[in-house]
Amino acid sequence: MKTIAALEPLTTRLLEIQRINSAASVLSWDQETYMPAGGGQARAEQIAVLQGLAHQKLVSSEIESLLSQWVDPETGQAIDQPGDLWDEPSRSLLREVWRDFSRAKKLPSDFVIALSRECSLAQQVWVEAKKKNSFAMFLPNLRTVLSFKREEAQYLGYTDSPYNALLDGYEPGATIATLEPVFAQLKARLVPLLKRITQSRVHIDDGFLRRSYAHTSQLEFGRLVLTAMGYDFERGRLDLSAHPFTTSFHPTDVRVTTYVHEHDLPSCLFSCIHEGGHGLYDQGLDQQYYGTPLGDSVSLGIHESQSRLWENCVGRSRTFWRFFYPILQQTFHDQLGNVSAEGFYTAVNCVKPSLIRVEADELTYNLHIMLRFEIEQDLIEGKTRPEDLPEIWNRKMEEYLGIVPPTDTEGVLQDVHWSFGAFGYFPTYTLGNLYSVQFFEQAMKEIPHLEDQIATGQLTSLRRWLGQKIHRWGRMFTPEHLSRRITGSPVDPEPFLAYAEKKYGEIYQL
Amino acid sequence: MKTIAALEPLTTRLLEIQRINSAASVLSWDQETYMPAGGGQARAEQIAVLQGLAHQKLVSSEIESLLSQWVDPETGQAIDQPGDLWDEPSRSLLREVWRDFSRAKKLPSDFVIALSRECSLAQQVWVEAKKKNSFAMFLPNLRTVLSFKREEAQYLGYTDSPYNALLDGYEPGATIATLEPVFAQLKARLVPLLKRITQSRVHIDDGFLRRSYAHTSQLEFGRLVLTAMGYDFERGRLDLSAHPFTTSFHPTDVRVTTYVHEHDLPSCLFSCIHEGGHGLYDQGLDQQYYGTPLGDSVSLGIHESQSRLWENCVGRSRTFWRFFYPILQQTFHDQLGNVSAEGFYTAVNCVKPSLIRVEADELTYNLHIMLRFEIEQDLIEGKTRPEDLPEIWNRKMEEYLGIVPPTDTEGVLQDVHWSFGAFGYFPTYTLGNLYSVQFFEQAMKEIPHLEDQIATGQLTSLRRWLGQKIHRWGRMFTPEHLSRRITGSPVDPEPFLAYAEKKYGEIYQL
Repeated sequence: MKTIAALEPLTTRLLEIQRINSAASVLSWDQETYMPAGGGQARAEQIAVLQGLAHQKLVSSEIESLLSQWVDPETGQAIDQPGDLWDEPSRSLLREVWRDFSRAKKLPSDFVIALSRECSLAQQVWVEAKKKNSFAMFLPNLRTVLSFKREEAQYLGYTDSPYNALLDGYEPGATIATLEPVFAQLKARLVPLLKRITQSRVHIDDGFLRRSYAHTSQLEFGRLVLTAMGYDFERGRLDLSAHPFTTSFHPTDVRVTTYVHEHDLPSCLFSCIHEGGHGLYDQGLDQQYYGTPLGDSVSLGIHESQSRLWENCVGRSRTFWRFFYPILQQTFHDQLGNVSAEGFYTAVNCVKPSLIRVEADELTYNLHIMLRFEIEQDLIEGKTRPEDLPEIWNRKMEEYLGIVPPTDTEGVLQDVHWSFGAFGYFPTYTLGNLYSVQFFEQAMKEIPHLEDQIATGQLTSLRRWLGQKIHRWGRMFTPEHLSRRITGSPVDPEPFLAYAEKKYGEIYQL
Repeated sequence: MKTIAALEPLTTRLLEIQRINSAASVLSWDQETYMPAGGGQARAEQIAVLQGLAHQKLVSSEIESLLSQWVDPETGQAIDQPGDLWDEPSRSLLREVWRDFSRAKKLPSDFVIALSRECSLAQQVWVEAKKKNSFAMFLPNLRTVLSFKREEAQYLGYTDSPYNALLDGYEPGATIATLEPVFAQLKARLVPLLKRITQSRVHIDDGFLRRSYAHTSQLEFGRLVLTAMGYDFERGRLDLSAHPFTTSFHPTDVRVTTYVHEHDLPSCLFSCIHEGGHGLYDQGLDQQYYGTPLGDSVSLGIHESQSRLWENCVGRSRTFWRFFYPILQQTFHDQLGNVSAEGFYTAVNCVKPSLIRVEADELTYNLHIMLRFEIEQDLIEGKTRPEDLPEIWNRKMEEYLGIVPPTDTEGVLQDVHWSFGAFGYFPTYTLGNLYSVQFFEQAMKEIPHLEDQIATGQLTSLRRWLGQKIHRWGRMFTPEHLSRRITGSPVDPEPFLAYAEKKYGEIYQL
């Protein structure tokens, strides 16, 4: 049986590429956290050079000729010599490297460099435009990025829609055709559920969440929960940024960010738990495979399942707050002294149509995604002109959520994604929501007394289970295969819907 | 006349190399400021890959063949075709690129990568060893780095001593032969001056500098002085690190660091002013030449002249504190309310032999350097074994300063430099001291009412003068040529000695 050791000439090269990519990630992290405003233009160029180099090295003739010995270009699978088979890790590694290589090979290096530069710049302009509520300011950059991404889809090739080419970059195997029925099923059940909730006589008081909560105490509590989750601060950090995110340079250096709003307790709290879920995935990747696909996360949907599992299935559960609420109450005695645990639980699960995706409840969240999924398809397919975006956005908000953003800052400008060219990224958030419930229910079956553990603040056996089932495998299995291995089923809206109907049925006495 | 535009194929390549080097600098900055402890090993590898790439690209056949059209390899000077001469910037650019290229060409890329990795690792071990006061812990890494640096000197080639090869990397043109007389002259005048000071009946009370000074207020005052100096926070930041330093990724992103010790007011204060002087140089480099030697600082000695000019000639002058002391007093009313401006001035100019170089007064500082200069020569020449360092260090401390460090942390382990292979770096500090007085005296002659300006907190015309005379030129002139252009003279200990004798003669009533 041939092992990964036989692939050493390839893995050495991949390691170098990974280090260049990791360096670019450090530069991006710095850009979002500490970089002075004036440094943006130079930073865009530095990142572009690194990404260009990584790309050139990946599509080099050395890697091509190594791969051509080992991979059948027709099937993208490892070639077995009779009597001399590849073991499973090698087989997966070759399949995934081939996937990366053949996608990258279709893009000219100059294009990759120019795309990187334009995306860094557009992201910086977006920050300003959002601050100033000026879609017009952002429009020229959006146009540029969009035309690059449409060009990218042409280079990559696709069936049915150019959007599929981009989607596949974030969620291998996903297509419009596989996602549309998922969203249709969600819509069919969530819209009536939402209607029943808004008509319910139950009134949830969440006003106390908008009291004044001290900046440092919010951060400290976030840090406490991260620590309890098993996020390792010896191999990570918590910083502030305009949008919370997680980035990894190596399993020994995985960083999360959050933001703190004085009059919005949930924003720091749940973003810490959310990013912590991402962080645990990246800290749990197998170091020995660093640089290869086996040391990399499998897809954005699976990544998001980790953050949403912690944020929602754990962090918005009664069980979790049984342990943590008394601590939170102690931290914010003046603000929460007269709020019961049950009152807090219902407040952080209050469902109401709102403007901002990242602050949405579990239920309306998917409607936010649906809207973006439809809009970005149309943008990439050229059915929508960028200048019409604010109007289309607002119309769809009205249609799906019944509310219209008073400003573009709270509307079409709210998310960073399109600014850096991440078209096809949004649907992975909903996939993450669906997977999160599937995985959590499996964990509840397999981990003895998990609920009791969570209720006493012991979160590490859950982390260990996720590590065993998901983190340590990297890209050994495709997302669908991984889901089947863990739950016996591919992505499935049913568990999420049942979970939501049960949870909110109970809260709202439906 | 041929201009730099004719060198475009070369400058494009240099720009790419600079961006890679700048990326490596971001990674190093992060390593010293925010990186979690666990990330060190991976970071060393990432930086090594980037430095290896930058090296490979510099010594590439493309650059070699471009240079061979334009530069005479015998003289290292631009080749002029009759009737088609290069302009001065092009001539300087070619001379300096040739210098960098021919130094780099002598080093194998594998050697550069391995050296970078070992230096990053040794630096991290040094941090721990210093904390734990364990020279033994650091010794294996020191041995490795030292043997690499000795090998580097062999690759580079040299006359007289391998140390000269390393020295030339930091201070082009400097050799042991040029430096020894400078140090001899300093020693001949400073040692007797020091003796007269220690025998003086003047007693300076500086005990109040060790009172408790709040962390945030120290930092705020540092920031205030930096702003007054003209350091641009839109293109820079102030952070904390174990050792203060300045690093630049581009003139639009130049970062300084400091440290804050509650019971040591001068450490944050003067390190901010010092690093600010470095920062102004890097922010003042000409952006249009970024990536070429004309957009780079000329030498460490000249760089240090900028930091020492601000720290000492400005920051330790009576004139400066005429404006800033009332503000400082207001900031620290409880601690400084009963200390007069004159009392503060003499306290921050108190001369006494001390253990730590970076905290030394202007006078004994050069004795600290002399000791390092001698030790590192012997190390590189193989006359001293690394294991004997603590003993040699302590003996020389006794000899030059009359005191012996009680621990290696306060002795041979105090400086970071040797850990990252910076042998030949220390003498540039003394060159900086000498240049700083030469330049400042010239500024006093050329800027009308400079003293009045400083006395009223107006520091920008000094910054502008330094920008005009030094910063904007990059490496257009050699350090010696630059010094002659500005002051009419090369580096010269006399002005510094006269300044020191006058200043301390007055303070100590000699």
